[in-house]
Amino acid sequence: MKKINRRSFIKKASIPIIGAASISSFKVHASTTTELNMVTSWPENFPGIGLGANRLAKRIESLSNNKIKVNVYSAGELVPPFGVFDAVSSGTADLYHSAEFYWGGKNKAYPFFAAVPFGMTAEEFNSWIYLGEGQALWDELGSGFNLKHFVVGNTGSTLFGWFKDEINNVDDISKIKIRSPGMGGDLLKTMGATPVNIPGGEILQSLSSGAIDAADWSNPVMDLAFGFYKVAKYCYYPDFKKPTVSISLGMNLDKWNSFDNGTKSIIEYACQSENQEMLSDFMFKEVASIEKLKSLNVNFRSLPQDIVIEAKKNVSGVLDNYADTSIGIKIRDSYFNFLNSRTSYKDFDISNYLNFRKI
Amino acid sequence: MKKINRRSFIKKASIPIIGAASISSFKVHASTTTELNMVTSWPENFPGIGLGANRLAKRIESLSNNKIKVNVYSAGELVPPFGVFDAVSSGTADLYHSAEFYWGGKNKAYPFFAAVPFGMTAEEFNSWIYLGEGQALWDELGSGFNLKHFVVGNTGSTLFGWFKDEINNVDDISKIKIRSPGMGGDLLKTMGATPVNIPGGEILQSLSSGAIDAADWSNPVMDLAFGFYKVAKYCYYPDFKKPTVSISLGMNLDKWNSFDNGTKSIIEYACQSENQEMLSDFMFKEVASIEKLKSLNVNFRSLPQDIVIEAKKNVSGVLDNYADTSIGIKIRDSYFNFLNSRTSYKDFDISNYLNFRKI
Repeated sequence: MKKINRRSFIKKASIPIIGAASISSFKVHASTTTELNMVTSWPENFPGIGLGANRLAKRIESLSNNKIKVNVYSAGELVPPFGVFDAVSSGTADLYHSAEFYWGGKNKAYPFFAAVPFGMTAEEFNSWIYLGEGQALWDELGSGFNLKHFVVGNTGSTLFGWFKDEINNVDDISKIKIRSPGMGGDLLKTMGATPVNIPGGEILQSLSSGAIDAADWSNPVMDLAFGFYKVAKYCYYPDFKKPTVSISLGMNLDKWNSFDNGTKSIIEYACQSENQEMLSDFMFKEVASIEKLKSLNVNFRSLPQDIVIEAKKNVSGVLDNYADTSIGIKIRDSYFNFLNSRTSYKDFDISNYLNFRKI
Repeated sequence: MKKINRRSFIKKASIPIIGAASISSFKVHASTTTELNMVTSWPENFPGIGLGANRLAKRIESLSNNKIKVNVYSAGELVPPFGVFDAVSSGTADLYHSAEFYWGGKNKAYPFFAAVPFGMTAEEFNSWIYLGEGQALWDELGSGFNLKHFVVGNTGSTLFGWFKDEINNVDDISKIKIRSPGMGGDLLKTMGATPVNIPGGEILQSLSSGAIDAADWSNPVMDLAFGFYKVAKYCYYPDFKKPTVSISLGMNLDKWNSFDNGTKSIIEYACQSENQEMLSDFMFKEVASIEKLKSLNVNFRSLPQDIVIEAKKNVSGVLDNYADTSIGIKIRDSYFNFLNSRTSYKDFDISNYLNFRKI
């Protein structure tokens, strides 16, 4: 995957660079260029999500007629994968491309903006963010860290995870050591499992060595790329731990406030169009990835229903622990006000039509 | 609803208007303004879809720093609701905001870009358009009419329709006269129904007078606004005739080709971000609309399964009639190549997770 405008980090992003030499010919009025440095939590050439970071950079550049340049840096290139939050908060970098469940150590409410067990679908989350209270609450949370937040993608339907042996009931879950971080891991713990957090790049080796018995990661497209099928032949679906994952952009709030309305529109609509594109991209590639995994002798299994039932019993107790501040309580309540209204009218959601297609 | 930049149609859109007086202060380099006239198939103050046309205009204006002005006209104001295609094709107007199932008389393949019985969901359609062959085929179809096409919204989950009396089986369907145009109406005809096409604004009166026994229109948000509950108390869901409807923008192709790459990016990303916004908007308002309809004594009924089974048996014969040109055949085949791959892996779509939520 080609990197977009990789430049020396020495050229500080916040200083406009004078000179029109690099500006395309059709924009003769442009006389200044702003550079923004985007740090990501993704390894170089990361499929799906990494592609999304590059597409987002390109959208901002195109919409600004190249008056804004966005330099994209992979995990570890400037800061460690989970160091991007602090880097942007402090102004060392301008933007991060990541997922909000990594920031539970900053405020436990952050994971509500990435994925919640038995939580919202991609479209429900987008509705809450764009039309409901979501964006305002997210920005209120971010303002305490000098951050402005945007949703810039979603994984769509995810897999429950990869297992070395079959799991048939709650008792089988109780015996495993599984890579499953955050809210989802906490929920598995209520069933007796031993959840651990391992960075994405180390999961395959941990499975291979027997350090863990199972692992969750993401959707068929990204899980294929990680190669988990090489060491764990049982793949269970769908996930209830993090059923879809929203991907986010964080921007330094001082930087955001320095922009005029036109530039703010560029950022906002670039993010919203890329949010649409990433979900479409994953959905388009999903079936081919599943076909490929089947050809590699993966045993796909529907998750046993008693595991789902037991998890549903335990989920609200687990989630209450993620609302431990006044803003966290507001976020949890707003999230569930919208989600519960949706689940109360479950006869009308898209699953009913999709169930028709299965007849 | 406030109209955006309503101006005299005498000021022809295609002539740049010189003068920076109306341009906001932060864009001192801007010296020309282009006006684009957008004609729509929607009545004035139309909820949902009409709101989307205005939002799209605003996005294009914001992203261009007001160098493009978009004048939005409701149905009949400049041209009749279904005259917008010809108006933009000929260059009388620059843009139309409508739905492609209205253009079956131009080429029978056009409805594939709005809604297909047992067809794609909003997200599947977006995947086919943005990542698959959809956009290229749509533009190939449009080039014969001097048009460039964009997807700019979707209704999300729709209702099967409004009935004065209960329907319990195929036999009940066979006796009704129902407002249901195009592919969906043709499919009901295979079960003995008498489908008719009536413009949206005349449906309520036709139901009231007894000229028709039933009618389909759209989703809970728009159907509430149309007031069908006043004369038909049975509402069946979900729809299989037009399960979700994509909303489209058509642009005069000569006009599109006259734009530089920066302007093309503005149009494209404005359309894609508005496509996301409309679906979120409908989803956000869906539950409140259903609650309101229930409070108005609407009897919601799940569509009897034998009607669905019979319709599925008949659907491919009906759809084959919509591919009667070489481009039509290509479009049908590409649409079903993608859709059939999705339905072959139906265990992995979002309905499986949503079914978990129902346990």
